[in-house]
Amino acid sequence: MNATELDTPALYVDLDVLERNIRTMQERCNKLGVSLRPHIKTHKMPEIARMQLAAGAIGLTMAKTGEAEVMPGDDILIGYPLTAEKFPRVRELAKTRRITVAVDSVEIARGLPGINTLVEIDIGAGRCGVQTPADAVAVARACTNFQGIFYYPAWLNEAEFQAARRKIDAVLAALKAAGFEVKIVSGGSTPGMDRTHLIPQTTEVRPGTYVFQDATGVVQGLCTEADCALRMLVTVVSTSVPGQCIIDGGSKTFTYDATKGAPNYGLFPGRTWTMPRMTEEHGHVALNGSTAKVGEKVWVIPSHVCPAVNLQDEVWYGRNGMVEGKWTVAARGRVR
Amino acid sequence: MNATELDTPALYVDLDVLERNIRTMQERCNKLGVSLRPHIKTHKMPEIARMQLAAGAIGLTMAKTGEAEVMPGDDILIGYPLTAEKFPRVRELAKTRRITVAVDSVEIARGLPGINTLVEIDIGAGRCGVQTPADAVAVARACTNFQGIFYYPAWLNEAEFQAARRKIDAVLAALKAAGFEVKIVSGGSTPGMDRTHLIPQTTEVRPGTYVFQDATGVVQGLCTEADCALRMLVTVVSTSVPGQCIIDGGSKTFTYDATKGAPNYGLFPGRTWTMPRMTEEHGHVALNGSTAKVGEKVWVIPSHVCPAVNLQDEVWYGRNGMVEGKWTVAARGRVR
Repeated sequence: MNATELDTPALYVDLDVLERNIRTMQERCNKLGVSLRPHIKTHKMPEIARMQLAAGAIGLTMAKTGEAEVMPGDDILIGYPLTAEKFPRVRELAKTRRITVAVDSVEIARGLPGINTLVEIDIGAGRCGVQTPADAVAVARACTNFQGIFYYPAWLNEAEFQAARRKIDAVLAALKAAGFEVKIVSGGSTPGMDRTHLIPQTTEVRPGTYVFQDATGVVQGLCTEADCALRMLVTVVSTSVPGQCIIDGGSKTFTYDATKGAPNYGLFPGRTWTMPRMTEEHGHVALNGSTAKVGEKVWVIPSHVCPAVNLQDEVWYGRNGMVEGKWTVAARGRVR
Repeated sequence: MNATELDTPALYVDLDVLERNIRTMQERCNKLGVSLRPHIKTHKMPEIARMQLAAGAIGLTMAKTGEAEVMPGDDILIGYPLTAEKFPRVRELAKTRRITVAVDSVEIARGLPGINTLVEIDIGAGRCGVQTPADAVAVARACTNFQGIFYYPAWLNEAEFQAARRKIDAVLAALKAAGFEVKIVSGGSTPGMDRTHLIPQTTEVRPGTYVFQDATGVVQGLCTEADCALRMLVTVVSTSVPGQCIIDGGSKTFTYDATKGAPNYGLFPGRTWTMPRMTEEHGHVALNGSTAKVGEKVWVIPSHVCPAVNLQDEVWYGRNGMVEGKWTVAARGRVR
C-alpha cells in the first residue's frame, strides 16, 4: 500500500532516512569520542530505541518513570527530577536494570538511596541544575551512588558554551576536592551536538530529535528536508477562503511549537505553502499563489516533531513511500 | 484519598463545579430558546457527555469520525469536513444513530448520499465555510439530505456579529429562494455564547469549553477561577534557579496554548506564581517574590483546557478535594 492511501492525519516514517539518521549520529559520537545515550522523548517507540541500541548507543535517556517501564535496554537514565511517589517504582526497576537518575536537590537525592545519580548543573538554560560548585558538592553528598554530572546545553551559542566549560571545570574541581570520583559527564542534545567538543569533559550525549529531524532543524540549518524521516500526511478539507486551504491537522495534531522567527507550523516539501495559523483541528495553510483541491493529500514536516508524535497512538513505517507496517507509540501517555 | 496525594502530573475534576457548569449552560440555552449540542472536544469522555445529555442537551458535536465511534447518544453532529476514507464509517454509524455532517464543498457533499448535512457558512473566522449565498446554494444542491446551516463565531466582536447576522440572513434568503427548507442553524461556542442573541436565527449552539472552563476564560472575563472544574496537580521538582521553580508539567502536559496577552501557561489559584515559559516536560514558574519547596504539590488551571485534556489518558474526579474515581479520556487518540 502506498503511504498516501492512509487515512489522515497519519504519521509515516521513512526507514531509510531513519536508519541513516541513527547511523550518522552514532558515527558523530564515535568520532567525538563520546558515548551516545539517545533521549526517547522524540519517538517514544521501543522499536526505534532497539535500533538505536543496536547501532551502538550505550543506553537510553527518558524523562518519566512510566517511560522506563515500557522501554527496552539494560541501562536507563531518567534525566528528570523525580517526585516521591515514583521512588518505589524506580527501586523496582533498579532490581533488574541499571537505572541512573539526574538530581539537583538534596531533598530528591536523599529519597534515592542505592540508586545511581548524576548531579545536574545549570550551564545557562535556566531550567534545572545547581548554580554553584558548592551546591553541586552539597547535592553529591546527599547521594549514596554518585556517578557524575549532567548538563543540558539547549540552544546555547558558542560564547555560552565557553562559559559553560569554565563552570563545569569549576564543578569538577570542587567535586574532586570533596573526594568524589566523576565517572560520567552527561550532556548533549540535537542542537547542541555541534558544540559538544567545546565541553571536552563530556563522556556521553543525549540527543533526541536527530532520529526524525523536523522543520525547526531545517530552518536552523541543523539538517535538510531530506533528513526529515517523519512526516504527517494530511488532507485538504476546505478551500472556501480565497488564498488559503484548511488541512485536517491543527494544534491537536502538530501542537503550537512554531519554528523560530515568523510563526510557521510545518514545512510542505515541494510546495509554496506555509502554515502561519492553526486552531485545534484545523491547519490554516497560506497557498502563497498556488492552488489546492479538496481531498488532495499533502505531506507536512512538523515544526517540532517531539510533541507531534506525542499526540498520536501509532506511526506507519516503510520505504520508498510504501507502508510496511505500523508501530504503537508505546511510551505516549506514560506521563508519570 | 485526598486529590493532593495523586502522583503528578494529574488532572482532577471537581464534580460540583462540573455539574454546575453543565446546568448553567443548559439554563442559558433554555432562556435563549436555543438547543444545546455540546462539543465534546473539551472533555472527550463519554461519562461527561452522558451528563450533558441528561441535563437536556439534544445531542453532541465532535470533529472526528473516530470520536463518534466511542461517544454516546443518538444524535451526533460531526462538525468537520470529512475525508473520503471516512465515508464508509459514517454510513455505518448512520445505520443506528442520527448522524449529521457539516460540509462546505460540493466534493464532500457529493460523497455523503443519504447522510444529513449542514452547509458551513464563514461568518468571519476565515477557516471553513462558504463565502457567499450563491456558494451556499451550490453546496446545498450537492447534498441529498440538506438540513440547514452551520457557523462558527469564534472570538468575533459585536460589530462582527452584526455583520454575521446580515450574511446569514442573505444565505437563508438565497436558500429559501432555491427551494431549500432550513431546519437547523447551528452556531455557538463558549466565548460566542454571550452574543448568540445577535444571530436570532440560531436554533442550536455547540459550546465545548464551558464544562471545565480555563485560565483563558478567566483572563477574558468569561468565568471566574471558581468556575474552573478541571485542574492539573503538579509537583515542584526543582528550585535551583533563583526566583523560579520548575514544575513537572511543560508543553507536553499543558501545550503551548497561552492565554491572550503576555505568555502565561496557567493560573496558580491563591499564589503569586505565573508560568511564562515551558519546555517539553518542564514548566518554568516565576515565583514573583514568593517561595517554593521541592516536593510541594501545586494546582494549576490550564491556559487552554481542551488540548491539555487531550494529552492525558485519564482524569480523576471527586468532590471537596477527595478522589472518588477516575475516567478514561476515551476519545483521545481517535484522530481520524
